[in-house]
Amino acid sequence: MNSPRVKEILSWYGSDNPGVRANLARIMNTGRLAGTGKFVILPVDQGFEHGPARSFAPNPPGYDPRYHIQLAVEAGCNAYAAPLGFLEAVAGDFAGEIPLILKLNSSDSLTKGTEPCSAVTGSVGDALRLGCAAIGFTIYPGSGLRNTQLESLRALVQSAKAVGLPTVVWSYPRGAGLSKDGETALDVVAYAAQIAAQMGAHVIKVKPPKDFLEQPEAKKVYDKYDIPSETLRQRIQHVVQSAFNGRRIVIFSGGEAKDTEAVLAEVAEIAAGGGFGSIMGRNAFQRPREEALALLRAVMEIYAKVS
Amino acid sequence: MNSPRVKEILSWYGSDNPGVRANLARIMNTGRLAGTGKFVILPVDQGFEHGPARSFAPNPPGYDPRYHIQLAVEAGCNAYAAPLGFLEAVAGDFAGEIPLILKLNSSDSLTKGTEPCSAVTGSVGDALRLGCAAIGFTIYPGSGLRNTQLESLRALVQSAKAVGLPTVVWSYPRGAGLSKDGETALDVVAYAAQIAAQMGAHVIKVKPPKDFLEQPEAKKVYDKYDIPSETLRQRIQHVVQSAFNGRRIVIFSGGEAKDTEAVLAEVAEIAAGGGFGSIMGRNAFQRPREEALALLRAVMEIYAKVS
Amino acid sequence: MNSPRVKEILSWYGSDNPGVRANLARIMNTGRLAGTGKFVILPVDQGFEHGPARSFAPNPPGYDPRYHIQLAVEAGCNAYAAPLGFLEAVAGDFAGEIPLILKLNSSDSLTKGTEPCSAVTGSVGDALRLGCAAIGFTIYPGSGLRNTQLESLRALVQSAKAVGLPTVVWSYPRGAGLSKDGETALDVVAYAAQIAAQMGAHVIKVKPPKDFLEQPEAKKVYDKYDIPSETLRQRIQHVVQSAFNGRRIVIFSGGEAKDTEAVLAEVAEIAAGGGFGSIMGRNAFQRPREEALALLRAVMEIYAKVS
Amino acid sequence: MNSPRVKEILSWYGSDNPGVRANLARIMNTGRLAGTGKFVILPVDQGFEHGPARSFAPNPPGYDPRYHIQLAVEAGCNAYAAPLGFLEAVAGDFAGEIPLILKLNSSDSLTKGTEPCSAVTGSVGDALRLGCAAIGFTIYPGSGLRNTQLESLRALVQSAKAVGLPTVVWSYPRGAGLSKDGETALDVVAYAAQIAAQMGAHVIKVKPPKDFLEQPEAKKVYDKYDIPSETLRQRIQHVVQSAFNGRRIVIFSGGEAKDTEAVLAEVAEIAAGGGFGSIMGRNAFQRPREEALALLRAVMEIYAKVS
Amino acid sequence: MNSPRVKEILSWYGSDNPGVRANLARIMNTGRLAGTGKFVILPVDQGFEHGPARSFAPNPPGYDPRYHIQLAVEAGCNAYAAPLGFLEAVAGDFAGEIPLILKLNSSDSLTKGTEPCSAVTGSVGDALRLGCAAIGFTIYPGSGLRNTQLESLRALVQSAKAVGLPTVVWSYPRGAGLSKDGETALDVVAYAAQIAAQMGAHVIKVKPPKDFLEQPEAKKVYDKYDIPSETLRQRIQHVVQSAFNGRRIVIFSGGEAKDTEAVLAEVAEIAAGGGFGSIMGRNAFQRPREEALALLRAVMEIYAKVS
Repeated sequence: MNSPRVKEILSWYGSDNPGVRANLARIMNTGRLAGTGKFVILPVDQGFEHGPARSFAPNPPGYDPRYHIQLAVEAGCNAYAAPLGFLEAVAGDFAGEIPLILKLNSSDSLTKGTEPCSAVTGSVGDALRLGCAAIGFTIYPGSGLRNTQLESLRALVQSAKAVGLPTVVWSYPRGAGLSKDGETALDVVAYAAQIAAQMGAHVIKVKPPKDFLEQPEAKKVYDKYDIPSETLRQRIQHVVQSAFNGRRIVIFSGGEAKDTEAVLAEVAEIAAGGGFGSIMGRNAFQRPREEALALLRAVMEIYAKVS
Repeated sequence: MNSPRVKEILSWYGSDNPGVRANLARIMNTGRLAGTGKFVILPVDQGFEHGPARSFAPNPPGYDPRYHIQLAVEAGCNAYAAPLGFLEAVAGDFAGEIPLILKLNSSDSLTKGTEPCSAVTGSVGDALRLGCAAIGFTIYPGSGLRNTQLESLRALVQSAKAVGLPTVVWSYPRGAGLSKDGETALDVVAYAAQIAAQMGAHVIKVKPPKDFLEQPEAKKVYDKYDIPSETLRQRIQHVVQSAFNGRRIVIFSGGEAKDTEAVLAEVAEIAAGGGFGSIMGRNAFQRPREEALALLRAVMEIYAKVS
Repeated sequence: MNSPRVKEILSWYGSDNPGVRANLARIMNTGRLAGTGKFVILPVDQGFEHGPARSFAPNPPGYDPRYHIQLAVEAGCNAYAAPLGFLEAVAGDFAGEIPLILKLNSSDSLTKGTEPCSAVTGSVGDALRLGCAAIGFTIYPGSGLRNTQLESLRALVQSAKAVGLPTVVWSYPRGAGLSKDGETALDVVAYAAQIAAQMGAHVIKVKPPKDFLEQPEAKKVYDKYDIPSETLRQRIQHVVQSAFNGRRIVIFSGGEAKDTEAVLAEVAEIAAGGGFGSIMGRNAFQRPREEALALLRAVMEIYAKVS
Repeated sequence: MNSPRVKEILSWYGSDNPGVRANLARIMNTGRLAGTGKFVILPVDQGFEHGPARSFAPNPPGYDPRYHIQLAVEAGCNAYAAPLGFLEAVAGDFAGEIPLILKLNSSDSLTKGTEPCSAVTGSVGDALRLGCAAIGFTIYPGSGLRNTQLESLRALVQSAKAVGLPTVVWSYPRGAGLSKDGETALDVVAYAAQIAAQMGAHVIKVKPPKDFLEQPEAKKVYDKYDIPSETLRQRIQHVVQSAFNGRRIVIFSGGEAKDTEAVLAEVAEIAAGGGFGSIMGRNAFQRPREEALALLRAVMEIYAKVS
Repeated sequence: MNSPRVKEILSWYGSDNPGVRANLARIMNTGRLAGTGKFVILPVDQGFEHGPARSFAPNPPGYDPRYHIQLAVEAGCNAYAAPLGFLEAVAGDFAGEIPLILKLNSSDSLTKGTEPCSAVTGSVGDALRLGCAAIGFTIYPGSGLRNTQLESLRALVQSAKAVGLPTVVWSYPRGAGLSKDGETALDVVAYAAQIAAQMGAHVIKVKPPKDFLEQPEAKKVYDKYDIPSETLRQRIQHVVQSAFNGRRIVIFSGGEAKDTEAVLAEVAEIAAGGGFGSIMGRNAFQRPREEALALLRAVMEIYAKVS
């Protein structure tokens, strides 16, 4: 039975068919945080995005695709997200053990370019065939290839909805029109969350924003209306507000690997600011297994406490 | 029962199927201006186009997608227009309360370029699924990406007509071939209305034109035939004439936020010039709720008086 | 019953299905020139191509789409050609009064570029839905976007043939590879007619060629074989010969507005050279109605005399 | 009944369906060379490629599309090849008189560019509708638009095979990566024949190669293995060998118009080198009819003698 | 009956349908290495990629497409891979004699460019029609045309899986972003294997990596975690690990022609490092037939010994 909080969250998606809402519920009713409306998701797309050694040499069992899904199940995550190859390598043997999110586009670090745009590397049909609970897609707001990305996303969201699959959007500002700092600026991250929400995303994944404003027109407004941005907690609040006033699920990435204390401190701020959860890749799978389990569980406890 | 004026307006769309005409009637028979053949529409696409804080910080309840549709219903608007995410967030709970217009393409302010072209972010199927009464689409006449835009619009208009949905075209001149002033020049705005009409638009939305002529070949003709352009009223008349001699519905945007008196003065001129109505976003939702309601109702009274 | 001349012309299209030939016959059996195999067609695409004021300010009733079809009917034209919006505005109310030609692509004067290519703004489905007798399409031989244009035309011609609609091709040389004079050079216009014919056009519309040769390789041949080009009549003969030795219908535009005497003198030469008719836009609808009727009828008399 | 040689040739196409083989047989069993496995084909695409006057002024009856098919029938050619317009003008009246090859892409001389790529101007459906025995397609190996061309060809070959139509590929090296001499260099022509064969062409048309090598890596190999290239006969042998060791039909164009003696001398070398035949356009249709018939028949006699 | 090793390998592809696994088994149960889970495959795409003389002049019987499949059968290879034309020339006559792999994209050496991208030259439908056991596809990780390539591959993999065909991916780093040495750098080759695996490849073909690291971010990791790379055996181990920790079939090309001793020494290292086999083209078919047979058999013996 869905908890009152899960029911409340599902009520925000009132235009979606029961299939989509059932899959959202499936993710919310899985793992240590089942029923709380909070999320900890394990994503492993770094093999594709950064290469195998940069991803798995720190903890070599991670070369094996089975390692990650086992980690996610044992830690009590809500879901496991990966590109096609990694999911195909485990979907058959682990069928039904944890909700899967198939990432439908991917980038690599061998090709460089100023206007980033991931390649579409999977389909809604693949997600169904592999028994997934959702699709995932990365957009780079600020890229000159905006229309290509948004139009691909639009087509996939629509197909996925029709077959009862919700969509998780990784919304990472990047491109010729943004400064390096601007990629995590508060105004830009909030805008990235808004774009994902307007595109029909059910779950939005952004980076924790920094106390910096990129766009002059936005800065004027932040100053005039005195939008608080000093603490991470305040910035998280603003981003969550920017995604339909808290009526869309917004989760945050952990970013680059760092020490346990730093990770937990950041998570505490995200939780306090109303963030719906964390999606934690390298900080989990690059640690030795027992350490990773301990960290993921500690993160879950933080979210459990605020729920 | 349709009023004589509504019947007259519907008669201009004699090549369209009854489904399209019924949806046009549905919009014309809704709200304070029902039966008058005049329109006040609330559009909220600024979250996508300008970012969340620039759009909603002036009046923070607007971060919530429910705020706007409630405002539109309570003010007595003919319709509420927004992109996919905003409509999905309310279409289920407010089903049938007001005609919805799904904007099928969107732009953001993170990506810059000299030849503007919005991304297609929704489909006719989405409009049907969400119970909309019309689709909306923005074109930028003057952009070097003209063919991409017009060909997308053409495909959507055709699909929409086939399923009984009329099309509202936002026709905003912009692009490398136009000066900044040229974007609201009388000759250019009249031309933009003509293009939208020739593309098969049922409702055309342009900006109120300024007393300026952009194109030398056009200027010669305006001078030779002494086309009056001093007052806004005259310019509105010319634009309405340019859209099939008044046999297409042409409505006007309010543009940037300004004070109430200025808004009402402009609307009075639009109404006097034969404009069919106003589409008023920021001037409405960035005011506190009671002020916005008062303003929208005052605007409606102006149109009611001329009808 | 088809006249012997109409039968003869239809015999040139022996690979087409009866539907296509019936529509060609419908056009040839309409109006003052019915049965003669000669054509006077009223085209009104200038609102889209040049803007509303430049097109209709000289004779303001022309802002109304009903004006033109009424003019065409009353003058006794074979057909009326216009883009989607203009035809939709009248097809319902004037159903069956005159054969309609839906122009399926359009350009405007707001966007400039060295390699012209019109946007596709209508479909064969639209033509059927509106009860048209033919589709129209403009190509710009010499444009660097040749393949886009020819491939669009090819697809449309094929679809149109399959549903019994003939194709009228406006073949206007233009583009980076041609000089301004070259656009109406005899060798280039003859080549443009050949290209249209090879693409499967049933009716080919070109401009009356000037006594000028553009391409050096062509000039050598014209000189060597002494192809006569001094009089317009001779040049018309050469163009008609270049379209399958007279076995394709070739009609000529009037070009820019000019005085009545000049128009009639040019038409007399076209008729004497074996041209199949005239397609006359601005010279007709920019004159006051009675003048336009008189002119169109005078033109028809010239063609009637040679038939 | 197929002759032993026709049967042998058909055996090389053992993966094709009976429909494709039957159409190949139809071409091989037609005209003066019926049963010999040799080919003389009349192609008339110059009207599109070079313009009408450059093509037909030397022999004006050629402006009429009927002229060429009558010439091909009377001369005893195996087939007649032309673009859509020319075939449509005759396919109905000459149904069944000679196998037709519909050229599915075309270029013109009004548009220039360094990376050539013909426009697709016909379809497999057109070929079926017109009763053709094969489709034709031109590729320009060496063009920077290689992928566009090969991918179009691939799609057409596959569709054509499925409905029983073989494909004739005109393989003409050209583009930014080749010198002017390189277009007819032995290594390049042999390579062009190989590419066409690998693409699935049933009949390959190349130009007679010159005694010149273009690519340094190839030159090393030609020198090392002492590939004979002094006489045209030797070069023809090498090209035929390069197309699956003689197990694909390779025919040669005559190139620019020249005197009869020169044409026949070249044909004799082609025949001696194992070429399967000639495809002869300008050298035939630009001569007066009787001369053309005499020439084509003389060419056929040369091939008949070696068969 | 499948051997235990074949069963084990098939178990890695647990998300694939029985059709795909049956075709993988078909390849593993063919030839001298049947049942061992090791592979020696003969690929002949050099005619298309490098031209006919450069490919076949060293051993002229190779101009004949029958030569290669006979060589593969007689040597006891697991499969024979070639582009469309070469397979069509033999698939009918050699039906069922050896598993065929249809290479679905191809490049040639006439067109040059800094961002390589092969043309798609065949389809899954062709593979089925010709009775193939798998499809093949080349990607160039590092090319600026990454998205075009990966998206084509994705579509083909998905269609092939649906009809029971596995995919062999040739993963050859190349493009503007890589140095010449970088194309065979250990980090880059390992990354190329990972990308192919993530794309859903069943069999991955890479070049034997050199003891060189290309990317600075990768070099840091290789140094920090002391990844052994001195011997080819160690580097092969790393590449195999990088393809899902040995749970994907990775085979290695022989590269340019070299002497027998060098070939066998390299193969011994590949085998010792856990490579699944060799795909050996020029080193086989450019030798005289008996030498080629001897070499291929010697290679097989090396793999047989380690299995």
